[in-house]
Amino acid sequence: MKRFFLSSFWCIVAISCAYAQKNDSLFVKKIYETALTEPKGYEWLEYLCKKIGARLSGSPQAAAAVEFTRQVMDTLGLDRVYLQEVKVPRWTRGRQEKAHVTHSARFATLPLRVCALGNAVGTGAKGLEAKIIEVKHFKDLTSLTHAQVAGKIVFFNNVMEQKHINPFTAYGLAGEARRNGASEAAKLGAKGVIVRSLTPNLDEFPHTGSLRYALNVPQIPAIAIATIDAEALSNALKTEPDLQIYFETHCNMLPDVISHNVIGELKGSEKPEEIISIGGHLDSWDLAEGAHDDGAGCMQTIDVARLFKQLNIKPKRTIRFVMFMNEENGLRGGQKYAQEAENNKEKHILALETDAGGFTPKSIGIGDEAQAAQVRKMRLWQPLFVPYDITLKQGGGGADISTLRPLGTVLSGLQPDANRYFDYHHTSQDNYETVNRREMQLGTATIAAFIYLVAEYGI
Amino acid sequence: MKRFFLSSFWCIVAISCAYAQKNDSLFVKKIYETALTEPKGYEWLEYLCKKIGARLSGSPQAAAAVEFTRQVMDTLGLDRVYLQEVKVPRWTRGRQEKAHVTHSARFATLPLRVCALGNAVGTGAKGLEAKIIEVKHFKDLTSLTHAQVAGKIVFFNNVMEQKHINPFTAYGLAGEARRNGASEAAKLGAKGVIVRSLTPNLDEFPHTGSLRYALNVPQIPAIAIATIDAEALSNALKTEPDLQIYFETHCNMLPDVISHNVIGELKGSEKPEEIISIGGHLDSWDLAEGAHDDGAGCMQTIDVARLFKQLNIKPKRTIRFVMFMNEENGLRGGQKYAQEAENNKEKHILALETDAGGFTPKSIGIGDEAQAAQVRKMRLWQPLFVPYDITLKQGGGGADISTLRPLGTVLSGLQPDANRYFDYHHTSQDNYETVNRREMQLGTATIAAFIYLVAEYGI
Repeated sequence: MKRFFLSSFWCIVAISCAYAQKNDSLFVKKIYETALTEPKGYEWLEYLCKKIGARLSGSPQAAAAVEFTRQVMDTLGLDRVYLQEVKVPRWTRGRQEKAHVTHSARFATLPLRVCALGNAVGTGAKGLEAKIIEVKHFKDLTSLTHAQVAGKIVFFNNVMEQKHINPFTAYGLAGEARRNGASEAAKLGAKGVIVRSLTPNLDEFPHTGSLRYALNVPQIPAIAIATIDAEALSNALKTEPDLQIYFETHCNMLPDVISHNVIGELKGSEKPEEIISIGGHLDSWDLAEGAHDDGAGCMQTIDVARLFKQLNIKPKRTIRFVMFMNEENGLRGGQKYAQEAENNKEKHILALETDAGGFTPKSIGIGDEAQAAQVRKMRLWQPLFVPYDITLKQGGGGADISTLRPLGTVLSGLQPDANRYFDYHHTSQDNYETVNRREMQLGTATIAAFIYLVAEYGI
Repeated sequence: MKRFFLSSFWCIVAISCAYAQKNDSLFVKKIYETALTEPKGYEWLEYLCKKIGARLSGSPQAAAAVEFTRQVMDTLGLDRVYLQEVKVPRWTRGRQEKAHVTHSARFATLPLRVCALGNAVGTGAKGLEAKIIEVKHFKDLTSLTHAQVAGKIVFFNNVMEQKHINPFTAYGLAGEARRNGASEAAKLGAKGVIVRSLTPNLDEFPHTGSLRYALNVPQIPAIAIATIDAEALSNALKTEPDLQIYFETHCNMLPDVISHNVIGELKGSEKPEEIISIGGHLDSWDLAEGAHDDGAGCMQTIDVARLFKQLNIKPKRTIRFVMFMNEENGLRGGQKYAQEAENNKEKHILALETDAGGFTPKSIGIGDEAQAAQVRKMRLWQPLFVPYDITLKQGGGGADISTLRPLGTVLSGLQPDANRYFDYHHTSQDNYETVNRREMQLGTATIAAFIYLVAEYGI
């Protein structure tokens, strides 16, 4: 299928291509130039990061981010700006985590930089002390017995490999331990888990992220450890296999609280009933400013609305600009948005998610649910993107909009260069300074140009 | 021509493509995986940047860089490693530059962050004080008279525009003032010039770079000013058109000194007389570590040699790995290399330059001097690069290898994402920390894969 997209199909396009209308081409150029020369999204991102900062679901800062984005959209002259109420989990990290080796003179000072995984239960002040059993690959856990694991801390030392060209491939492969390791280990009687951070780098930052506890399995504490420290711990275990460690986490799941999706709308002039949604998620982890994940995507989304208004683009179909709440540890915003769409019998023709960092855009991904005729139609737009080094490719979507799939919506996504994404992802490093103005604004322009075409011609 | 490259031609390739041999595809994969998992070039770059640092042509550090790269190549088991003597200019910056507004209470503290342009004469300790005449576009100078300019400092406030998709386009357009502004202003009697830094950003760093004095024109001092300060100075001039400034530079052109190109060679097993050169420049500006410009390119070049040896690739044609000396302010290394090639009647079939920063590679550019049949042959390799998002495109070359054009050599270049290049270019910010391991190593792999094909199949 990939070959189909990249070679033979592209041929048909190129040979027959009488499509790239001059006007569209000029319009797209105007969109890119305006995005680059007047970087409103990048400026809003500075406010979101520096004045509001981390915005974990249910936190006061998340509420501030809702209010900020509502206010910004209110200034744009959209047809409608509204909040969509959604109940979200309220997980809190609490006091700083601690971890160290115990009962070992040799490794007493081994640095163990850790953080609790999102949604995990905490150890509380009494902490947790136990021997460690290391598992190099998540699947190796299945070969261990209850006797081998019971009472211990399972140390998942899965390496997220450098060799994959797309780092998200490596992330997917290595990520199971973080997502499901705690419950799988608990089934074998483990008291806790330590998970190697999900980055191909050797760095000193613990990378958080959410876990999911299985039903009817004891919920045990779970922490991520910096990759450098994971390597050192693994080496220490070779010398002292009975090494014990102590860790302490103060995280806690509180009752759900009320939060909101923030939605702006431009009503279609000819087919208002055909709805196109674009969006990112407004919540972030609590360790940094959530600049790439996903402040950039949210500000790009609003900036697309700004570009439409500023360039006086009157879309033929309705466009929604959506700040989804609670992508990181619950997906409640995405679920609510789809539920409301279904309740209101809305016709969502296409959704686009931007949640892969504010880096140089490389492609627009189109999901497999798109029918052949739809793909053909969209691929006819490819020549318009050639000057910007953007390709239309198979493989789109994203977590928040995945909820629209049952409604027959075609799911697409902005696909930026991902090489630096896991330098920052879910760490204390995901801050405004790491986002480059040009890179982010090119992403905005790419979304705006694509959505302009979808709104104009449909799919 | 661009369209030819990107559409119709690509079709022919895709339709007829029986070429992408399985073995080549596996080989290319191995090259990418090894480059990503064993990042030798990136490790060498740390040494070059942190242990040697800035290496202006003719400086002791440049000599250290020659010795370092010679030693590294000596460890690789190449067929030959040698130095090629070349006389280079020895320009020195001397003491830190100063600049401030004089005779104005209002603007006395206006920050003017400046640095001398490379190859410029200095003012010496007596400094230079004069009124300013601002020119918004280089060409506007021609409309000024001798009476308007004589005795003044010409302030070239050319904006390097954000709107261009390729920042090098903007650089080319805005760069004439830096390159030729001093002599053109001197022809009208100017005492000195201030040039707005060549970056599309508003930042606080003066960006240096070389100027060229015309023959038989007085050589006047020339400085670059940070873009933020250029904006402020321009605004100040609106209020006080007779504003005077003082600046002091201590740069100096000393007699030429002996330096070297550093060259490694892998001899071709079947057609050793057909030579392929790849390279970057070993000299850098003096304000930072020259990490992107062009430490990355040099280390990529050596790393390609390492990959060939490590993967036991025996090239059918001869490959030269060249560290050119003195690209920044003289091009003497490139000239010497071509001169020697001509003297020895060598047959240089293709040269590739990597001097656009250690960023994610996007394409390999092929110069216009390539004949149609050669382009066709190389384009047949395109499918091999699809998994890596690399395209073969029109437009290659680079300053150092341009000297080979008269010998009938096809000139090519690695073309990375340039969006961040002018954040660092020729400033105090061009340091190791700004280079991302994956991005740089993907560039290395791209060069290695392309050169492997050229060495295997010729052009």
